[in-house]
Amino acid sequence: MIQVGIVGATGYTGLELLRLLSNHPEVEVVYATSRTEAGRKVADFFPGLRGICHLTYSEPKAAEVAKCESVFYATPHAVAMHSMKELLDHGAKVIDLSADFRLKDVPLWEKWYGCEHVFPEGVEQSVYGLPEVNRKKIQTAQLVAAPGCYPTSIQLGFLPLLESGLIEPSDLIANSASGVSGAGRKGDVSLSFAECNENFKAYGVSGHRHLPETEQGLQAIASGESEEINLTFVPHLLPATRGIVSTLYATLKGNQTLDELVNLYDERFSNEPFVDVLSKGQLPSLQNVRGSNFCRIGIEKPLDRNKVVVVSAIDNLVKGASGQAIQIMNIMCGFNESKGLHLPSVAP
Amino acid sequence: MIQVGIVGATGYTGLELLRLLSNHPEVEVVYATSRTEAGRKVADFFPGLRGICHLTYSEPKAAEVAKCESVFYATPHAVAMHSMKELLDHGAKVIDLSADFRLKDVPLWEKWYGCEHVFPEGVEQSVYGLPEVNRKKIQTAQLVAAPGCYPTSIQLGFLPLLESGLIEPSDLIANSASGVSGAGRKGDVSLSFAECNENFKAYGVSGHRHLPETEQGLQAIASGESEEINLTFVPHLLPATRGIVSTLYATLKGNQTLDELVNLYDERFSNEPFVDVLSKGQLPSLQNVRGSNFCRIGIEKPLDRNKVVVVSAIDNLVKGASGQAIQIMNIMCGFNESKGLHLPSVAP
Amino acid sequence: MIQVGIVGATGYTGLELLRLLSNHPEVEVVYATSRTEAGRKVADFFPGLRGICHLTYSEPKAAEVAKCESVFYATPHAVAMHSMKELLDHGAKVIDLSADFRLKDVPLWEKWYGCEHVFPEGVEQSVYGLPEVNRKKIQTAQLVAAPGCYPTSIQLGFLPLLESGLIEPSDLIANSASGVSGAGRKGDVSLSFAECNENFKAYGVSGHRHLPETEQGLQAIASGESEEINLTFVPHLLPATRGIVSTLYATLKGNQTLDELVNLYDERFSNEPFVDVLSKGQLPSLQNVRGSNFCRIGIEKPLDRNKVVVVSAIDNLVKGASGQAIQIMNIMCGFNESKGLHLPSVAP
Amino acid sequence: MIQVGIVGATGYTGLELLRLLSNHPEVEVVYATSRTEAGRKVADFFPGLRGICHLTYSEPKAAEVAKCESVFYATPHAVAMHSMKELLDHGAKVIDLSADFRLKDVPLWEKWYGCEHVFPEGVEQSVYGLPEVNRKKIQTAQLVAAPGCYPTSIQLGFLPLLESGLIEPSDLIANSASGVSGAGRKGDVSLSFAECNENFKAYGVSGHRHLPETEQGLQAIASGESEEINLTFVPHLLPATRGIVSTLYATLKGNQTLDELVNLYDERFSNEPFVDVLSKGQLPSLQNVRGSNFCRIGIEKPLDRNKVVVVSAIDNLVKGASGQAIQIMNIMCGFNESKGLHLPSVAP
Repeated sequence: MIQVGIVGATGYTGLELLRLLSNHPEVEVVYATSRTEAGRKVADFFPGLRGICHLTYSEPKAAEVAKCESVFYATPHAVAMHSMKELLDHGAKVIDLSADFRLKDVPLWEKWYGCEHVFPEGVEQSVYGLPEVNRKKIQTAQLVAAPGCYPTSIQLGFLPLLESGLIEPSDLIANSASGVSGAGRKGDVSLSFAECNENFKAYGVSGHRHLPETEQGLQAIASGESEEINLTFVPHLLPATRGIVSTLYATLKGNQTLDELVNLYDERFSNEPFVDVLSKGQLPSLQNVRGSNFCRIGIEKPLDRNKVVVVSAIDNLVKGASGQAIQIMNIMCGFNESKGLHLPSVAP
Repeated sequence: MIQVGIVGATGYTGLELLRLLSNHPEVEVVYATSRTEAGRKVADFFPGLRGICHLTYSEPKAAEVAKCESVFYATPHAVAMHSMKELLDHGAKVIDLSADFRLKDVPLWEKWYGCEHVFPEGVEQSVYGLPEVNRKKIQTAQLVAAPGCYPTSIQLGFLPLLESGLIEPSDLIANSASGVSGAGRKGDVSLSFAECNENFKAYGVSGHRHLPETEQGLQAIASGESEEINLTFVPHLLPATRGIVSTLYATLKGNQTLDELVNLYDERFSNEPFVDVLSKGQLPSLQNVRGSNFCRIGIEKPLDRNKVVVVSAIDNLVKGASGQAIQIMNIMCGFNESKGLHLPSVAP
Repeated sequence: MIQVGIVGATGYTGLELLRLLSNHPEVEVVYATSRTEAGRKVADFFPGLRGICHLTYSEPKAAEVAKCESVFYATPHAVAMHSMKELLDHGAKVIDLSADFRLKDVPLWEKWYGCEHVFPEGVEQSVYGLPEVNRKKIQTAQLVAAPGCYPTSIQLGFLPLLESGLIEPSDLIANSASGVSGAGRKGDVSLSFAECNENFKAYGVSGHRHLPETEQGLQAIASGESEEINLTFVPHLLPATRGIVSTLYATLKGNQTLDELVNLYDERFSNEPFVDVLSKGQLPSLQNVRGSNFCRIGIEKPLDRNKVVVVSAIDNLVKGASGQAIQIMNIMCGFNESKGLHLPSVAP
Repeated sequence: MIQVGIVGATGYTGLELLRLLSNHPEVEVVYATSRTEAGRKVADFFPGLRGICHLTYSEPKAAEVAKCESVFYATPHAVAMHSMKELLDHGAKVIDLSADFRLKDVPLWEKWYGCEHVFPEGVEQSVYGLPEVNRKKIQTAQLVAAPGCYPTSIQLGFLPLLESGLIEPSDLIANSASGVSGAGRKGDVSLSFAECNENFKAYGVSGHRHLPETEQGLQAIASGESEEINLTFVPHLLPATRGIVSTLYATLKGNQTLDELVNLYDERFSNEPFVDVLSKGQLPSLQNVRGSNFCRIGIEKPLDRNKVVVVSAIDNLVKGASGQAIQIMNIMCGFNESKGLHLPSVAP
């Protein structure tokens, strides 16, 4: 049993950490911080945790938080980097759910996030926490940057094809759709029910912060390729609360059959506890990942032409954020990687 | 063809006025005011009006606005009362969609709305604009207070029973449910998609501003009764954008059959263009009023006991606000009452 | 560790039993029956269970099923009664989620369900499984009828007031709203997305099968009252998948304050693991019970008049069906009553 | 004023024809046929038409129907072809909303629709009814095949780029998402609320009937190209009732700027009454086309790379079906093309 802390526990990823960790047999959450709600009971703020969570919000104090063996940062971007050095110096193992340590190219980060990075040493030291790619590095890391939600679904979807060199890396398309919870717990007209319900739209087409993260990850996966990764990424806002479906398009270099492609995925992910490759002819849906840590993937080759279509579905708050963060913690702390996460989806 | 103005045209009732009036053959909207959006094209703010509305938002100036023959106030509460005197002095016919002139009891208004009423003379002069009750007074009024959304659905639902003295006036229950658009166009966490979707809850049970308005209206309808009106009103927030269903409960004094009750409603509303009494055994639904100005009503007498149940459905933005306001304008201006409003519901 | 079987495991309550029992440490599900899907993998039918449930559907054979220590019937009404005798003779402990054994008055059952009851001895022997009322009887029962979803929410909501004799039993109103999953997993135009989305309506007002069940339960609770229970019950269909909110209205005989009423509820339910009485001023919502076994209850006394309003929220598939069935099983089998059910709600 | 008939008026496109035509000043609907509902009032079947539509369903008899000047077929596929010859012989102008006359290649039609085409002469004679491409031919046609919903959104989206030869025709991608009403008014588990709500999934990836129709249309548009059209089309099912968004991807041959691309669209569609090209930086949404006949289009060129992204939004029941059919009728009958269709979207 280890003691863990959650910094910034009033957003949806914080709430989801509390929900999931409430059934983790090796973990006790002892700190949940919030500047605005300090002193208030967590279960007053999130009444769905009444009878489950008995914590009270604390002010975030690095020295206190650092007493935890493991710490989750569920803060907005450009917050974690400010207290990270102190926390690491105290020896805590940290999983940052924000974007602060995801991009290895600091100037690129500064361009997309519009501010100076105050802890570039942390960027260097940190590990990008996609377990299916970096499991070994995560085992010994002290600071792990949990991947973004869109990037998780896209990287897992392209992984076997890129690793095996079967597709053109310079002509990748990711058409993604996310539930509204991906934008966080916010009062914003554009996120209001009346504006999102019975609506659907593309956004951020001219440039979305998850693009450089995803391209960095795909480039790492495609390390044997001479050509550079070139991804066209179009996110859309779904009239749903949870979940991401990424529909991926790539051009095959050769002439693999659909059976061969499905086999490739089956083999690559056969030992992965949370990547589920569907049978030929099946495609995933949000309903079948909601509330669970699974990424489910289906593969098609329409009319046997030269395009491969991969559909990858996750719950943005679980495998796309808090579930994956717990998976990372399990790896860092030497627990069984599925501990506390072996949950069926909540359907219907 | 008359010229009309809309004061406060950036909210949902303003938008709905623009939508509905775009097909009104006797009306040209010449002013749409907004303090925050003055100078911006209306169709840039509401892209659904591209190709339909060519207006630009103006600053609200009473002298300018008053050049219109008819003016709609679609502002938040406690705004219209400030410029109403000037507007009326200019001779404009005004329909106020806010609550400023709904309650005849000024101290009661001040208690529920938490501020001083600056134009009590206007309250005295104004007519409460429920056409099914006050049609004659509306014809000659200069200032009409358009009823609230919940009060419209509840008053129309109880009307025949109260008028005819068949039910106990002191034991009325209105269980209402409204779509989220009823709360207006707002950035507020509690109105966000992630909080409202797959959710449902009662609110304002200890006291809602529409209660005194409704009780005032029911009291007027039940003018022959010696006992006072006593309404228990519980509003709920639906995971839907548009529409109100009010499920009304009353105790019958006598022993009328369901057939007799349905007949009573049929007769009372037979000449009403926008009240539709369903056949015995039928109940209304939101889908069948969405986008239209109809109030549809179904009546039941469960197990032939002593309770009558009336279900009343409207689109909160149409018969509950902007459609009813146009119906009022039609009456005030001597147009056919249905002009521009004879629209089917948008289903599915 | 006991072995359990689920008869009729292709509907939503069967799926929910599989979801919840997958994390129950004392239970192994060894049978899941379906006439139509026998031979098919459960996880092929419900892909959300891939990686979680490794069962294959079997033909329902009482002799086989009866080898289980505990058996859940998740079949439509009028199915369980046909094989119940054989099952009980084999000694299995049975929880029936259908209506077959809920009504003690067999002719009344036959009237509402439109067919002959083939096992009236089972009705006599069975216990009505509302733990908060019948816990002791459940402990020693062999056959328990799990309460319906609406009846659970209504009985728990009225319980303290009726038990204490504070309200008029002959003037009770239950205005309930349920998510569409309450109608089961069905292909039916009236349950289709296009018909239910952005829609809301009352149904079954002239008479709903849950009315006699609820009145029977309320009568038992109000055993000290001389007057008979008289409940007006109006169910509504919500544009949501899961959850029931029942808004209950009653007339107070005396003059209790809201504080006294909240205290009454607090005390009555203080030892109940799954009834959560909210603080004064708080009301429950679907979001805060979704996926969990809690019934959350809020109490109001509008404008301090003589009506009390109780709002009771449950997840219809959990506390309203499969979760409560597992709670019953825990009691019957001597497990901790919360075993496998101490789950936070899934929000947002 | 002409008399029109609707064959198969119990589905959503039939309902939408009735809704839209109720406000068309030149049209009186005199027939609405249904085999199953003959003799029943239309407004009993669709209560949202109470007070609006006073028709009774008739049996479909070609001789009777043919008395109408214009006839809409809103039947399932493979129905219209059976009575079309007789109808045309009577001289009626026919708009078929089904797929029977969309594909010019009869064997291809037979392959995708799985049955023999009984009226290939009709295919030859018919005009494909996309007004933005075939306006002149529609003017003199007797039989027009109204385009499918997805094909409308995709063809309009690619049109200026293909016509001008700026993109590679052999590498087109259409990622489309449709509301559930696109599947028709059906009782089908997969279309039920509980299965579609909070869900999202790709379907028909291995091959969808709208693919050959779309490729045929794109080929005609790209008539100057030597290379063949090759479209990868992936439809998705949205948790929304109405609307289609198609996100289109193509590779630019040259180096046009985004300004040049937006200008190209502006110019091509400047005289089109129902195609609305948004300003640079704007993207369309379902909300802004719901209930209206507009196709709204936004163009992007992400990071100024070689891919162009076009987002095209329509209401599948209006511009994607019944609205477009009325637009076609207006052209065929010599009315102003916008007559009865100049409607704002219904938002929110």
